[in-house]
Amino acid sequence: MYGSGPDIRTGPVPLLRALLYFFIMRLSKIGEFGLIRTLRNKCRCVSPDILTGIGDDAAVVRIGNRKMLVTSDMLLEGVHFDLSFTTFRQLGHKFLAVNISDIFAMAGTPQYFIISLGIPEELRAEDIGELYSGINKLAEKFGISVIGGDTCASKNGLVLSGTLIGTADRAVTRSGAKEGDGIFVTGAPGDSAMGLSLLKKQGRRVRRFSPSTARLKLMKKHLMPDPVPLKSAAGITSMIDISDGLLIDMSHICDESGVGAVIYGDRIPVSGELAAAAKAMGMDPLEFALKGGEDYTLLFTAPLNIRTNAVKIGEVTKKGRFIIDGKGCRTPFKAEGYEHFK
Amino acid sequence: MYGSGPDIRTGPVPLLRALLYFFIMRLSKIGEFGLIRTLRNKCRCVSPDILTGIGDDAAVVRIGNRKMLVTSDMLLEGVHFDLSFTTFRQLGHKFLAVNISDIFAMAGTPQYFIISLGIPEELRAEDIGELYSGINKLAEKFGISVIGGDTCASKNGLVLSGTLIGTADRAVTRSGAKEGDGIFVTGAPGDSAMGLSLLKKQGRRVRRFSPSTARLKLMKKHLMPDPVPLKSAAGITSMIDISDGLLIDMSHICDESGVGAVIYGDRIPVSGELAAAAKAMGMDPLEFALKGGEDYTLLFTAPLNIRTNAVKIGEVTKKGRFIIDGKGCRTPFKAEGYEHFK
Repeated sequence: MYGSGPDIRTGPVPLLRALLYFFIMRLSKIGEFGLIRTLRNKCRCVSPDILTGIGDDAAVVRIGNRKMLVTSDMLLEGVHFDLSFTTFRQLGHKFLAVNISDIFAMAGTPQYFIISLGIPEELRAEDIGELYSGINKLAEKFGISVIGGDTCASKNGLVLSGTLIGTADRAVTRSGAKEGDGIFVTGAPGDSAMGLSLLKKQGRRVRRFSPSTARLKLMKKHLMPDPVPLKSAAGITSMIDISDGLLIDMSHICDESGVGAVIYGDRIPVSGELAAAAKAMGMDPLEFALKGGEDYTLLFTAPLNIRTNAVKIGEVTKKGRFIIDGKGCRTPFKAEGYEHFK
Repeated sequence: MYGSGPDIRTGPVPLLRALLYFFIMRLSKIGEFGLIRTLRNKCRCVSPDILTGIGDDAAVVRIGNRKMLVTSDMLLEGVHFDLSFTTFRQLGHKFLAVNISDIFAMAGTPQYFIISLGIPEELRAEDIGELYSGINKLAEKFGISVIGGDTCASKNGLVLSGTLIGTADRAVTRSGAKEGDGIFVTGAPGDSAMGLSLLKKQGRRVRRFSPSTARLKLMKKHLMPDPVPLKSAAGITSMIDISDGLLIDMSHICDESGVGAVIYGDRIPVSGELAAAAKAMGMDPLEFALKGGEDYTLLFTAPLNIRTNAVKIGEVTKKGRFIIDGKGCRTPFKAEGYEHFK
C-alpha cells in the first residue's frame, strides 16, 4: 500500500509547495514517499464509506454491514526479486506473504486474493505452476481463496501484482498512537536484510532449507517471510508492519499519529543468527535491525499495561524521535532505510 | 480478469491431460486461455462466500450482506500500450475504463479503485500527474474512489495494475445463456481495432480530438474507450464485455453456458467511420467488428421479448457456432482474434 509521508499535510500552502516540488522533479529525486504524498493529495476519496484511504497498510471501506480491508503489492523482477536468488515457489510464497502482512498490520483477517501476472514468453509453464504452488500453500494455511486476476505477456521480466481483501471488526491504523504508550515489536527485525545480504554473496538459489543452519535461517526469513497476526488487537492504539525498516515504519506511525518516540537500542530483539552473521562481517547487527526492511513482523503501540508476548522497545512521546543506547546516550533518528526511488 | 477456457472442464481425465499439456509447453505455445484454464484448475476456491471465481469478467463474493465484484487488469508498456501513441492522460482514462468495463459486464456498480504502479526512473513526475488526471476524471464521472495501491520503481517500462471493486444486486455471469435467447450488442464493435491500426500508421500521439474527424473518432475509441452500463439488467441471462473481440467473447459465453450461437453478419452494427476507413484500406469492416478487441461495449443474451436499445445480432442455439452472411450462407466460427500469448 502507499506508505505515508513524513511531514507534508494537506492544506493550501503545503499542498502548493508539494505540487510545485513535484512537477519540477524527476521521480528518482522526489523519492517514493514524496510521490505517495502527492498522489494522496491528488486522489479525492469521494465516498463516506471510505474509513481509511491512501496512506496506511490497507484501505478500509464499509461494504454493507462489514468493514473491508484492501491492500495491493507489486513485485517486479530486477527490483523486488532476482530469479538468481529465489525459486518460483519461494517467490509465490513471498508474493502472498507481503500482502497478508499488510492485512495483519490493520488487525484484519485476509480472505480473497486477486493475482495479476505479466509473464515473459521465455518462462516455462512449470515455473508458473511452481509460483502458484507457493501461493496456494500459504493461502491454504490462512484460509485465503484466490478468486481471479489477469494474465498477460510481458516483454520485460516477470511482473506480479496482487490485491488482498480482508475484513476486520476494528481496523487498527497508523494514526492512533498516544503519548505514554509503549512501542512493541512481535519479532526480531533485521534477519531478512541480513538474509538478502548473504544471498547476494552466495549468488545462487537455495533449494532446501534443511538441514537448517544459521545462514539458511536468515536466508529463509528473506525468501519466505512468515507473517503472524496478533492474537488480539484489543487495546492496540496503532500498528504497521516492518516492510521498509524499523526506523522508517516507526516514523510513519509518528507522522500519522502526530507523536514522538524513544526507542531503546538495547531492547530491540536481535536473533542469535543475525548477531553471529553481523559479527563475522564486522558489522553492527543493530544497523540491520533498525534499517533493514522486509521483516514483515508487526510494530505497534499500546498502553503500557497491555498483556502481550511482543517485546517492548520504546515509548511514545509528545515529540522528537530518539534512539537511546545501552549507556543512556540519546541520538535523534530519521526515517532511514531502503526507499524505492533513491 | 482471467477469461474462460473454451473446452477443458474440471474432472480427473481432462485435468490430467491439461496439466500434462501445460507442463511440457512454453507459455508462448500454450496461449493465454490455456494458461487461464490451468490456473483455474490449480486455484481452489475454499470459501462458500465465493459465488463466482476465476473465469468471468469479475469475481463475485459475499461480504456481509452484500455481493461484491472484484476485477483486476494489468497494462504493460510495450504490450498493452505504446507511449508513442498515447498521452499519459489518455492512458489513465483507459486504465480505469478497462476495469470499469469488467464491472459493467457483470451488471455491477464500480466503487473503489486500487492502483499499483511500476514507474521507470526516467519518467517525469508531470507524466504521473497527467496519468492520475486521466484516472480521476473518469473516476469522478462514475463516482469511483481511488483508495490506495502500491508504487515502486520499475527498471523495464511503465507497469499499471488496477483492481476495481464494485457491488451488484444480481451479478450477471457468462454462464446463463439459454437456447432461444437473442444475442445483443450495445455498440458498434471494431472501431477500436481500426483506431489502433490508424494510430500505428500515423506513428504519433493525438493531442486533441477536436475538431473531430472520422479518423480521430476511431482513434479516440481506441485511446479513450467509454464504457456504458446497461440501464437495467432485468431479464439478461449472460453478459461479457468485448475486450478480446466479438468472436472470442461470444465463444466465452458459449463455453460457460454450454450453448451454441448463430450470428448474423449483416446485423452487426458497423459505424460509418469504420466502414469508410476499411473501404479506403480495401478491407472488410466485418473483420474488424468480429475479431478486433478492446471495444469495451457489452455483449449479452436475453429472451427475445426483452425491451432494450441494444442491437440484436443473433440467437443462442443448442450447439454449434455459426456466422450467417447476408446471402444466408452459414460458416462455422472459432474463437479468433487477438490473444496475448500468440
